[in-house]
Amino acid sequence: MNHFTQFENKSLAEQLIEEALKYKSDPRQHISKGLGKRVGCIFLNPSLRTRASTQIAALNLGMDPIVMNMDKEGWALEMQEGAVMNKGTVEHIKDAAAVLGTYFDVLAIRAFPSLSNKQEDSEDFVFNQFIKYSGVPVISLESAIRHPLQSLADMITIQENIIAGHKPKVVLTWAPHIKAIPHAVANSFAEWAIGCGHDLTITHPEGYDLDPKFTKGSKIEYNQQKALTDADFVYVKNWSAFDDYGKIHCTDTSWMLTEKHFKNAKNAKVMHCLPVRRNVELSDEILNGSRSLVQKQAENRIYAAQAVLSKIIE
Amino acid sequence: MNHFTQFENKSLAEQLIEEALKYKSDPRQHISKGLGKRVGCIFLNPSLRTRASTQIAALNLGMDPIVMNMDKEGWALEMQEGAVMNKGTVEHIKDAAAVLGTYFDVLAIRAFPSLSNKQEDSEDFVFNQFIKYSGVPVISLESAIRHPLQSLADMITIQENIIAGHKPKVVLTWAPHIKAIPHAVANSFAEWAIGCGHDLTITHPEGYDLDPKFTKGSKIEYNQQKALTDADFVYVKNWSAFDDYGKIHCTDTSWMLTEKHFKNAKNAKVMHCLPVRRNVELSDEILNGSRSLVQKQAENRIYAAQAVLSKIIE
Amino acid sequence: MNHFTQFENKSLAEQLIEEALKYKSDPRQHISKGLGKRVGCIFLNPSLRTRASTQIAALNLGMDPIVMNMDKEGWALEMQEGAVMNKGTVEHIKDAAAVLGTYFDVLAIRAFPSLSNKQEDSEDFVFNQFIKYSGVPVISLESAIRHPLQSLADMITIQENIIAGHKPKVVLTWAPHIKAIPHAVANSFAEWAIGCGHDLTITHPEGYDLDPKFTKGSKIEYNQQKALTDADFVYVKNWSAFDDYGKIHCTDTSWMLTEKHFKNAKNAKVMHCLPVRRNVELSDEILNGSRSLVQKQAENRIYAAQAVLSKIIE
Repeated sequence: MNHFTQFENKSLAEQLIEEALKYKSDPRQHISKGLGKRVGCIFLNPSLRTRASTQIAALNLGMDPIVMNMDKEGWALEMQEGAVMNKGTVEHIKDAAAVLGTYFDVLAIRAFPSLSNKQEDSEDFVFNQFIKYSGVPVISLESAIRHPLQSLADMITIQENIIAGHKPKVVLTWAPHIKAIPHAVANSFAEWAIGCGHDLTITHPEGYDLDPKFTKGSKIEYNQQKALTDADFVYVKNWSAFDDYGKIHCTDTSWMLTEKHFKNAKNAKVMHCLPVRRNVELSDEILNGSRSLVQKQAENRIYAAQAVLSKIIE
Repeated sequence: MNHFTQFENKSLAEQLIEEALKYKSDPRQHISKGLGKRVGCIFLNPSLRTRASTQIAALNLGMDPIVMNMDKEGWALEMQEGAVMNKGTVEHIKDAAAVLGTYFDVLAIRAFPSLSNKQEDSEDFVFNQFIKYSGVPVISLESAIRHPLQSLADMITIQENIIAGHKPKVVLTWAPHIKAIPHAVANSFAEWAIGCGHDLTITHPEGYDLDPKFTKGSKIEYNQQKALTDADFVYVKNWSAFDDYGKIHCTDTSWMLTEKHFKNAKNAKVMHCLPVRRNVELSDEILNGSRSLVQKQAENRIYAAQAVLSKIIE
Repeated sequence: MNHFTQFENKSLAEQLIEEALKYKSDPRQHISKGLGKRVGCIFLNPSLRTRASTQIAALNLGMDPIVMNMDKEGWALEMQEGAVMNKGTVEHIKDAAAVLGTYFDVLAIRAFPSLSNKQEDSEDFVFNQFIKYSGVPVISLESAIRHPLQSLADMITIQENIIAGHKPKVVLTWAPHIKAIPHAVANSFAEWAIGCGHDLTITHPEGYDLDPKFTKGSKIEYNQQKALTDADFVYVKNWSAFDDYGKIHCTDTSWMLTEKHFKNAKNAKVMHCLPVRRNVELSDEILNGSRSLVQKQAENRIYAAQAVLSKIIE
């Protein structure tokens, strides 16, 4: 595995899930594996879970994690080839990424989308500049279009909660929000759920269709109630429009899940990547109740990152 | 010891002081005790001494400290139960604290008061939310109403400078300041000094009485000169009014200690938790002179934190 | 070596270059040398390379680096002796530096110039306050007037790229920029290049003469083309005026190096400390081409810091 940026194939996903569960049972079993190796965690955007879980994963392998908040401790990076840098940007990604590649064995990078330049975001332009110029393995800590460590943690969580011998129905449902939110978590969840062979239904108001390259192989259902029927796992997430890029079309609060939404899915578990806006995206009733797997997902972020780091440094 | 948030009893305080002094004489004597254990240092407010001393204390025990500046690297936390989170807060304390509790063996938290909502501050609302929802031992790095690691370091410093066989007179004096300052350091100092059996006099202008739950057992004296007579240790600190909550009533500069204030307390030592506004709270004359114990207090912050961490992870 | 703040003598410089190259060939060869020792990296200004390379150097020696961004995580420091601190500053450098000296075995400090107070900057006032009050060895991570770790890395890079038996011509050339930039890198490069016995020519538009105390022993040449003739190493850097302190006099873009500037210096290598504003200070053509040593300089920052730390803790 050179980089960890997306779902690759079912076999690798299964390996990573298995490895992660082994680490969860004994986190420091390979405490010498990464000795003398450094991972640079580069944040162009804020983070809580991702920062902490990646640091912990590295420490569990004996690696030295060094965090750099480029947006706060560093300076603005220039991304355009050939730019005459006589404005606000202080260093070109070419130079910064190459230096970081010299300093670290692995880079882990968070780079959110603009939500205004659809083409650049769709090409994962900023994130790919790091890959292009750093020359070392790169792990995505959420790019413009994917959040694969989250999805790996989600697959681990589903695996832990599956009822043996029953193929679960997995539903990804849009939820209301007050801001325009990236597509990365939704895209990646769809990509991984489909890739891992789950039966995936995606439900959202019309106008919120995700980029079809991520949803091919799923069923799209605009009626949330229908989608939820017989669901085993319901993944809740807001995203802004993809076609009318980055816009908010619907704020219909009836899309926020409460207990009454589960009348035809009595045993369904509810998932969310966090942070969650309570009583906007998801009700207190659900989050405080026994359906919620959100804390387990967060915990599994550590072991997802550890499995990936362990594989990358092999 | 489950949490470290306040003075508990004299016996525990004495144990911690003794442990701290042992660590001071040989800081890395238990370098393997905390191996594989992590302390998450969560700052909702800025810090210099507390951040560094807590990290060092953890490293001296072989623990991994991870610092998170929630105010700068993270996002605004929602504190109200049942809130509809459609405004500026991004994550509920319930969810954030629970995740942090999953990620760390111990949490160390700094959460200053609002100085506007007296009831919430008096209940140490924000700090207690972390205790309620994290599910792991919590150490206070200064809450709305207490700063127990500072007070433990202060008690250690008094212990080191006490004259054998002489019961010292300890004075806590209000000092001028230009801003409205929390009560935490003053409250905790009173709580610990009284609890440890010291003879404590508190002096301040009228209108600056502290919350009586912290000062019960001390003598209140509005005349600073009288209070200072025969003092052995004089703790200097500003605080805003408690009754007229968070307000500044007096800026009388004559309350700032200079050498002439010590004519009836020739051998008195002077203490302050730092940072100190020189020539506002305390004169250069005192801070640069031999009465000052402020650097020793700061140094003892390391060993106070180390004794507490050591006890917590036992 | 008590502190590392400037060029001391040729013998020490040669020792440090040799040590650094040894560490480069096997970075963790002295992984136990710094066990239990701590370096506090104090940033009053932003940093990317310096922060990361210093942390890595410390880790390579088994030391614990702790980073403190005073400008962002801490508070404003008072620098003036005797100040009545009733304004924006929260802590006096005396008190803060003394505490840091208690907490760390070594301090590494970045403190940029004001570019407005020439006398204070020229005395390296802020940086020297840390030396005066901390009581421990201090390493400069760039002060108002010097950047010795950069210069040491530059000397290492020249050493690695020198043609045996040929005394190289080294040129330091001014380059255009859009902001008023400090003199530290240029001063230090001159100081070290001259001190190490290199044949140094400095070229810049009239009005940009550096402080002569750094350039004594070099040749000043206002005609860039003449200066570049037969150059082996060309160090590119902007700086603001020194005589008319901190001002920008010239923005002549013809001073930006392109391939055609090298018609009389066919084999010249080009150096820059980074971050570099592409197509303002230096052309893409040069930076992307084989003349550029900028990435090697950045890499050598690690080993420069490691050689210095190793010597300091001896």
